[in-house]
Amino acid sequence: MSCAFYLCMREFIVVGHKAVTDGQFSLNDLPGSAGRMDIMCRCVNSALFLSHDLRRDTIIYLVLLGAPGPPKIVRFSGRDVRYLNPDERSSGSLIKKALELKAAVRWKESTPGVWVRQGGLKDVLAELNLDTEGIVSGLYYLHEDGTDIRGEMEGTLYQRTIFILGDHEGMTADEEHIIVNAGARSLNVGPFSLHADHCIIVVNNELDRKNVRKWCD
Amino acid sequence: MSCAFYLCMREFIVVGHKAVTDGQFSLNDLPGSAGRMDIMCRCVNSALFLSHDLRRDTIIYLVLLGAPGPPKIVRFSGRDVRYLNPDERSSGSLIKKALELKAAVRWKESTPGVWVRQGGLKDVLAELNLDTEGIVSGLYYLHEDGTDIRGEMEGTLYQRTIFILGDHEGMTADEEHIIVNAGARSLNVGPFSLHADHCIIVVNNELDRKNVRKWCD
Repeated sequence: MSCAFYLCMREFIVVGHKAVTDGQFSLNDLPGSAGRMDIMCRCVNSALFLSHDLRRDTIIYLVLLGAPGPPKIVRFSGRDVRYLNPDERSSGSLIKKALELKAAVRWKESTPGVWVRQGGLKDVLAELNLDTEGIVSGLYYLHEDGTDIRGEMEGTLYQRTIFILGDHEGMTADEEHIIVNAGARSLNVGPFSLHADHCIIVVNNELDRKNVRKWCD
Repeated sequence: MSCAFYLCMREFIVVGHKAVTDGQFSLNDLPGSAGRMDIMCRCVNSALFLSHDLRRDTIIYLVLLGAPGPPKIVRFSGRDVRYLNPDERSSGSLIKKALELKAAVRWKESTPGVWVRQGGLKDVLAELNLDTEGIVSGLYYLHEDGTDIRGEMEGTLYQRTIFILGDHEGMTADEEHIIVNAGARSLNVGPFSLHADHCIIVVNNELDRKNVRKWCD
């Protein structure tokens, strides 16, 4: 058996409906005054960490919709990020630094591998440019009413796979409309409804297995 | 199709080699002065949380081996726990309260659903009393060199399934000896080595699927 690890890109988009959009929040109160920023922090951990390594093929976009200046997007790239540890305060601190910059419609890098811009869910989807010629992309919406990820993703291997997730509030009807219009298929990760960060772990595990199975046969 | 959700008990044992054993640590520095207590906090979250609910069939034991009074065990029960939120500071605060009690060889409840006692890995395994008549138990050691959980656990449904995990330092030779002597089989959760809290998510997902598959056929 010969194995080549094929690094297809993984991208996660998480919408934080209450997550604040300036850098004034306290790292001692991520769930409260920062508008459930703790969820965003755990999603960064779930998306990017392997044991003693980072997932260099993974990007996560946090779409922040809380006061005072929504919408904003903070992007972490596993290939480029520095100063990131697994604890919530660590990712919280990098998000805070990003939100301390004056965001514009173009990305600005706040610390290595972390960027911020103005924009919402529609903007991040437009920017992903799913129709780029020659790149085969899969776009999925993680939702408990979707079909099972195990069955659905068998037999396909996209060069780029993008997953959209809601926070504890789920998605609004308008957001679901944007997601459906972008062509996303709904998937679930198992029989029970899980937190967004837990869903990301299951998705990463499924893709890990899928890539290795595909390229080690 | 008729479904009955069969609640087989799940128990996780996580060894924190540097995690402190008194309640003097700061919630603002869980990774540093508390001896990577952040890992223990995330394991509690992974073991016990569903979206908008708790896993009432799950218990997690944290075996703490750091200064100043090792070994100690802190136990969280999903059925009984109160005041637990998903963020690291929340579980950290309940661990801190448990460690502020003077621990003895018998369990003491510090807050609802959280207990503390003196003891180490050997003690918690002895207490689990795997040979109790009439209870079919599965004991597993999660380790990257184990066999794949998907294949290994097909076709079996234990009334009680126990998983042992190390922290970022893995296990010592002495600890592995105790684990092997207790009859644990080694499992891995996929092709890459993951953090303990990420492994717990994958295990819970596997058991969720297994239970539903078994009882919904």
